[in-house]
Amino acid sequence: MSKMSKNFRKEHDFLGEKEVPNSAYYGVQTLRAKENFDITGIPLSKEPLFIKAFGYVKKAAALANKDCGVLDKKITEAIVFACDELIAGKYTDQFISDLIQGGAGTSTNMNANEVIANIGLEYMGYAKGDYEHLHPNNHVNCSQSTNDAYPTAFRLALYFIIDDFVTSLEKLQASFYKKGKSFKDVLKMGRTQLQDAVPMTLGQEFNAFATTIGEDVQRLKEVQKLITEVNMGATAIGTGVNAPKGYAEKCVKHLAKFSKVPVTLAADLIEATYDAGAYVQLSGTMKRCAVKLSKICNDLRLLSSGPRCGFQEINLPPMQPGSSIMPGKVNPVIPEAVNQTCFYVIGADLTVTMAAEAGQLQLNVMEPVLAFALFTSFEYMTKACDMLREKCIDGITANKERTKDMVMNSIGIVTQLNPILGYEQSADIAREALKTGKSIHDIVVKERKLITQKKWDEIYSIENLINPKFINQ
Amino acid sequence: MSKMSKNFRKEHDFLGEKEVPNSAYYGVQTLRAKENFDITGIPLSKEPLFIKAFGYVKKAAALANKDCGVLDKKITEAIVFACDELIAGKYTDQFISDLIQGGAGTSTNMNANEVIANIGLEYMGYAKGDYEHLHPNNHVNCSQSTNDAYPTAFRLALYFIIDDFVTSLEKLQASFYKKGKSFKDVLKMGRTQLQDAVPMTLGQEFNAFATTIGEDVQRLKEVQKLITEVNMGATAIGTGVNAPKGYAEKCVKHLAKFSKVPVTLAADLIEATYDAGAYVQLSGTMKRCAVKLSKICNDLRLLSSGPRCGFQEINLPPMQPGSSIMPGKVNPVIPEAVNQTCFYVIGADLTVTMAAEAGQLQLNVMEPVLAFALFTSFEYMTKACDMLREKCIDGITANKERTKDMVMNSIGIVTQLNPILGYEQSADIAREALKTGKSIHDIVVKERKLITQKKWDEIYSIENLINPKFINQ
Amino acid sequence: MSKMSKNFRKEHDFLGEKEVPNSAYYGVQTLRAKENFDITGIPLSKEPLFIKAFGYVKKAAALANKDCGVLDKKITEAIVFACDELIAGKYTDQFISDLIQGGAGTSTNMNANEVIANIGLEYMGYAKGDYEHLHPNNHVNCSQSTNDAYPTAFRLALYFIIDDFVTSLEKLQASFYKKGKSFKDVLKMGRTQLQDAVPMTLGQEFNAFATTIGEDVQRLKEVQKLITEVNMGATAIGTGVNAPKGYAEKCVKHLAKFSKVPVTLAADLIEATYDAGAYVQLSGTMKRCAVKLSKICNDLRLLSSGPRCGFQEINLPPMQPGSSIMPGKVNPVIPEAVNQTCFYVIGADLTVTMAAEAGQLQLNVMEPVLAFALFTSFEYMTKACDMLREKCIDGITANKERTKDMVMNSIGIVTQLNPILGYEQSADIAREALKTGKSIHDIVVKERKLITQKKWDEIYSIENLINPKFINQ
Amino acid sequence: MSKMSKNFRKEHDFLGEKEVPNSAYYGVQTLRAKENFDITGIPLSKEPLFIKAFGYVKKAAALANKDCGVLDKKITEAIVFACDELIAGKYTDQFISDLIQGGAGTSTNMNANEVIANIGLEYMGYAKGDYEHLHPNNHVNCSQSTNDAYPTAFRLALYFIIDDFVTSLEKLQASFYKKGKSFKDVLKMGRTQLQDAVPMTLGQEFNAFATTIGEDVQRLKEVQKLITEVNMGATAIGTGVNAPKGYAEKCVKHLAKFSKVPVTLAADLIEATYDAGAYVQLSGTMKRCAVKLSKICNDLRLLSSGPRCGFQEINLPPMQPGSSIMPGKVNPVIPEAVNQTCFYVIGADLTVTMAAEAGQLQLNVMEPVLAFALFTSFEYMTKACDMLREKCIDGITANKERTKDMVMNSIGIVTQLNPILGYEQSADIAREALKTGKSIHDIVVKERKLITQKKWDEIYSIENLINPKFINQ
Repeated sequence: MSKMSKNFRKEHDFLGEKEVPNSAYYGVQTLRAKENFDITGIPLSKEPLFIKAFGYVKKAAALANKDCGVLDKKITEAIVFACDELIAGKYTDQFISDLIQGGAGTSTNMNANEVIANIGLEYMGYAKGDYEHLHPNNHVNCSQSTNDAYPTAFRLALYFIIDDFVTSLEKLQASFYKKGKSFKDVLKMGRTQLQDAVPMTLGQEFNAFATTIGEDVQRLKEVQKLITEVNMGATAIGTGVNAPKGYAEKCVKHLAKFSKVPVTLAADLIEATYDAGAYVQLSGTMKRCAVKLSKICNDLRLLSSGPRCGFQEINLPPMQPGSSIMPGKVNPVIPEAVNQTCFYVIGADLTVTMAAEAGQLQLNVMEPVLAFALFTSFEYMTKACDMLREKCIDGITANKERTKDMVMNSIGIVTQLNPILGYEQSADIAREALKTGKSIHDIVVKERKLITQKKWDEIYSIENLINPKFINQ
Repeated sequence: MSKMSKNFRKEHDFLGEKEVPNSAYYGVQTLRAKENFDITGIPLSKEPLFIKAFGYVKKAAALANKDCGVLDKKITEAIVFACDELIAGKYTDQFISDLIQGGAGTSTNMNANEVIANIGLEYMGYAKGDYEHLHPNNHVNCSQSTNDAYPTAFRLALYFIIDDFVTSLEKLQASFYKKGKSFKDVLKMGRTQLQDAVPMTLGQEFNAFATTIGEDVQRLKEVQKLITEVNMGATAIGTGVNAPKGYAEKCVKHLAKFSKVPVTLAADLIEATYDAGAYVQLSGTMKRCAVKLSKICNDLRLLSSGPRCGFQEINLPPMQPGSSIMPGKVNPVIPEAVNQTCFYVIGADLTVTMAAEAGQLQLNVMEPVLAFALFTSFEYMTKACDMLREKCIDGITANKERTKDMVMNSIGIVTQLNPILGYEQSADIAREALKTGKSIHDIVVKERKLITQKKWDEIYSIENLINPKFINQ
Repeated sequence: MSKMSKNFRKEHDFLGEKEVPNSAYYGVQTLRAKENFDITGIPLSKEPLFIKAFGYVKKAAALANKDCGVLDKKITEAIVFACDELIAGKYTDQFISDLIQGGAGTSTNMNANEVIANIGLEYMGYAKGDYEHLHPNNHVNCSQSTNDAYPTAFRLALYFIIDDFVTSLEKLQASFYKKGKSFKDVLKMGRTQLQDAVPMTLGQEFNAFATTIGEDVQRLKEVQKLITEVNMGATAIGTGVNAPKGYAEKCVKHLAKFSKVPVTLAADLIEATYDAGAYVQLSGTMKRCAVKLSKICNDLRLLSSGPRCGFQEINLPPMQPGSSIMPGKVNPVIPEAVNQTCFYVIGADLTVTMAAEAGQLQLNVMEPVLAFALFTSFEYMTKACDMLREKCIDGITANKERTKDMVMNSIGIVTQLNPILGYEQSADIAREALKTGKSIHDIVVKERKLITQKKWDEIYSIENLINPKFINQ
Repeated sequence: MSKMSKNFRKEHDFLGEKEVPNSAYYGVQTLRAKENFDITGIPLSKEPLFIKAFGYVKKAAALANKDCGVLDKKITEAIVFACDELIAGKYTDQFISDLIQGGAGTSTNMNANEVIANIGLEYMGYAKGDYEHLHPNNHVNCSQSTNDAYPTAFRLALYFIIDDFVTSLEKLQASFYKKGKSFKDVLKMGRTQLQDAVPMTLGQEFNAFATTIGEDVQRLKEVQKLITEVNMGATAIGTGVNAPKGYAEKCVKHLAKFSKVPVTLAADLIEATYDAGAYVQLSGTMKRCAVKLSKICNDLRLLSSGPRCGFQEINLPPMQPGSSIMPGKVNPVIPEAVNQTCFYVIGADLTVTMAAEAGQLQLNVMEPVLAFALFTSFEYMTKACDMLREKCIDGITANKERTKDMVMNSIGIVTQLNPILGYEQSADIAREALKTGKSIHDIVVKERKLITQKKWDEIYSIENLINPKFINQ
């Protein structure tokens, strides 16, 4: 026996025989996938929640098969043992397939089937590869197809991942609210179309950031529910061929119990087996988050522009020297990194769109790139939100005097006089202020004597600027 | 008095004076907008539901102003009369601004203000342009800003438009269900990855189309609710400057009552005044519809490919000669037109994304292109769905004999033998069939005698192929 | 004879007979298309350059057919007469098909064939509809298919349209250069990452806008060449079935001569008949323009932000009152409208991408939506560039004193001291300035006495700030 | 001295002091970046060509600085030594910054500066961190800014990467041509709109794939030239502040010489420093490749659909078992993986678009995500093209008998009779064939006796079907 063959075992599938490293828990089909697909260089092992999800799916399937009398107790026990190992986060390194792969996830499903079979074989006292005792297809994949097992595991993984992202968003929201509270007395100019508009507080501005993120949290929770509809029992195309009666319902029940994810069985399994609508919806919601976070970061960068030739309303905490040439320059690097992450997510949403549209007939074969796009989007955005909160929002300070001076020196405050003077006279005052550089106060109170100083003080008290009462005479 | 000036009246705003045609109900600001913006050549008048929505908004505002004591009875009555005219679909031709415009919709809002003022003036017995009696800004726009009136009218219009689209989708869904029912006994080959998989019925395939559209209807109804949150009373930036106490709540109540749209007041008016999240969500949902309809049309074109060298499972009704050179050629022109409409919608969703991300500080100034993109998307898709139903789905017929022959001649039916023979032996049979051109039946029953003819007949009865029972011995 | 039939003539195709209005120059197939497709409501007549292009294509084909002995002199003459009418811009209203249509443009091609046939028939002294003397398919479409005539006409139209757009861009470029020249002495702060960087002139900034547009002009001219490759003579799929020997070359020669467009025959007609690569390239280049114009407009809006609480470096000409509530507010409405147009174009590029990718086998059936997306993109952008130039750029003024004050008051000018003091000491000075509010001048010259006032004056002369000489000791 | 401090050295920047591992060649600013940015988890070290490019850039800068008398010989020598090490591929692991980062690449540039400084220090006999002898900013970054060094290195890296991709494309093209040659006699049905059209050869189809890829190669070479325009010497914003006279030209000359990339200096350095147009163009060209490769893969999947219920014109080499449930099923996994890669690239192009549009004023701060998107797109696509060629195209076989039978049995061949029988009679024959199932031959020759058998044989010889001669009587 050659040295080589001592370190390898022979496995075969219907395309022929291959040598698999003895140490490997994966088998011949995983090996083929590894050789076939080398696109992103990012293996399944980088997505531990996906592997965990496969653990739940295969466990639920095994128990449902046992309930239906299709798998015996011994084999079921071995599969369940192996699945629990995966759920516990072990054997992650055995998932070596590239995230982008042909075959609609068959390689990923077979990777799971093979690893589970070999863990199970060792548990039963057999050698890896002795598949007659526990077979990746006949037993681990029993009553299943890639076409139901893969999307079900995918959805489970997404469910977990959304949880993580929502947690990050909620923390970020809390951070914005906290700042909103601390800035509640910081009077500043509101701007529309980048032009000075009417006064507000910086607190209102930060509270609005919190509000808008809170809405995304709600949208994410809605779409999280959508993806709990699974198609276990559909097998190849949704007709349930080769699955025993009652299996689908039993399987989904086990799945919900073990994973604590409220999965339900799709009513139309044909549709559920090919439809990518839920992924489009999820990705669209994620894109919405990206659009809004990008807008927030654009605002933060604008508001902190300066230090002398910009808006300079707020100060972001300095994180690193800002320039290799300009001494002392500090840049809004954290919001910039978030913007870029958002652009990635928006691009990934297009990948999802294209992949979803490309589904044909009874299956969407592009599911692996859907997984790639969604997994990376959520991972990057979750990290970006944490970074934004910890390294930026929590440390923001306000330039209270400057923002107040800008308000009082502005032309926009003439708006407050509309109800008293009418739009046209107010516009005329604004025009004069703009032309001459004079303040609204001087024109209205001193020159034209349109209102008294007392009235002015009433209208332009900080209190009334922040919470305008309607003063129309 | 020159002849010219007889046909024109003079109006002015703070940029100066302009001559407005005497016949026009719009005024100087609308005229400026007309001169400033000539991009799409598509005027507001092409969106009657948007104008109707402005009728509701301005009416509700007038009544709320009256309730608050800010407008007197006479002026309110004139505004309400004018608004009712707009709601009734009159004066549509007076809305001449281009849909794409700068100013965040100020031109559209002023177009409405001016038209309403002039209708109202005539109602009161004054000449058009006598704004001292009824002023576009001071009265019609009282307690409002473009920044609350425009998005509120926009949302109302979207609400109506979604209603129309949902109606079209539901009719299309019904059409698919009807075909699904009529094709319930048409046995055919299911395909995954364009490769023969396992049998199903054409009825199941068409039912799945109905199911998937039904899910879109649900998503649309959810997002329709989202856009009922309005920011009336926010005025310029959400602080409610210049709006009397209680106005916002009163206005929204009137609005809900007259429009029959269940609008509610946003809790955070600062956020609501700039946030474009609901449009992104709506557009994303619309994109989802487009992705799914495109997939359905791709399938219809595949299934009807032929007439001799394709799948030829179904026949689409011939709508027009298919070629200027190839006699007798008939093409799937209706699904093709739907595909193209879907691509338009997916592109428009990107426009929405870019426009939403470009919002800065207290306002999203890109709202007009949001309106343009959403209005055209919904209009085109509604027409496309009606066209698809009337000119294609309702007339589809099946080639029942051919589809059955393909099933019986397929290799894919070996899958049904898995539970009896195991995956590996089945694979071996498949390989032989593929190599030799023999049928599965001949190899299994005649040559290898693995099962009896009786067992074969049981497994491969049409009934069992359509609703597979699990036969594992 | 009924009254109705007096106003109608009967025409038939292989789907049956239809009544066509006697006044119509189009025929039965155009009528079917009109009934089949009602998506955008935008008819072919809105694209006069496309109709003109069909005039050239059909004329060239007729003459090539005559050269090959396939059409006789009389018929050729009639076709040429009719084509010249189209080229002259007549009969545009007879092109009634919707721009988005199924059938890969067959309806458009038949619309042209029918209109030409009927003009020709009248020219020959026959009644409209007497197709035995001059037939839309047998004669006007002779040796052609939609699959070569349509894309050839499309490319010709694009060639003309690019010419128009390039003219607009070049005018805009000239406008920026002119401003660049007039602002050559306006010292201002350059900004990177929205943070104050080092000084420059406003002239440099506007020249850079001109430069960047000039590069787009070059890219457009390159891609304009790409689309001159046509596939006339390919007929149905590129094999040239039914076209006489030598026809293709002759046709293209005629086409180049009459249209003055340097069209050439594609080397691989199979590929040329389905490939949409040139449209993707053209649309991508257009998207590039949109991205850059949007960036420019973003900058213009930033630089003109204010009037009191922003950058306020430049003033855009006021085009209309900016607010229905805030008196005197003037907004950057023209750049805003350009931004929105750019977002439309970027969205349309995605439509082009999807449509191009959806091409299957020997034809890209999605060409009509490619045409729709490209035609509208070019039309809108051409108008947007003219608008931007006339209503904005040409009227921009600078706030020279303010921009200079900002430079002198900035911290960024410490960068100039790097070569003398080193990066670290300069950074320390910057930090002190930021902390204390002191000027760089005071710290360097007065307090730390690191350089003399004379040296300071040398380094910080306007001349050296604008064209920095390297002063390192 | 504590144990910890023995393994660490202290470094500081103007934000304070940090401990850097003694073994590290990077310094304090790299460390800050590492802590600040953890988004993708993909470090710079994954892009060795980018690091190599920095080696060239910093070497060229050092030599130009020496030429200008700004750096002395000893320091220059040390920097050149260090750069040569990077060019040789060493120290790659010292590039630890995340590819997505804020600061417009400052962290990447400083990572290079610090690593080069420390390699150089050791070369000079000093300890790492003894920056007084060789300073990352004052010496390595001398006369540079991130804003010129980073984009120049980025462009150099892109140049190398395009070379690799073009090589892959050319090999793929050759593979298609080879197949085209071997399939030159395989008669098959051409299809337009998925409907049978007219005959062609499989060779023509594969040649067209080669042609279309060849055009992409040309486009890539054009855009490769575009990105050779660099802005070295621009320093912070393009004014060249702090760079000695003549430095820019000298630097670019050195750069071209060492890197063998024909870089040239941009004429307008202000524009060149912020413009992202070349990246948009490059990404758009890459998207074009993706669109076309996706179309090709769609075709390959269609043509190989079957094995019994599809087109079955060609056979793709089986790469792995196609199903975990359907025995013997083999799927077109390689084209599927390519499709998915294309969708990634199309999504990444949107990321590029968004990032380019977000550039503001004198810099595009989103360059790092531009780099991320372009680097991954090229890397994935290069691998995908190699995979497609090796694992699919090279092994494709044709089903020659089947494709010929389909042609002869088709209705589409009636087109060949157009010139003899006219479009209308041909259409009538087609209609009868479709209705009755009869062959065109039987109707034309036997029943209607419209042409003789001899004529038929002439027209329908394989030779005439493949290269149609025009036979019109």
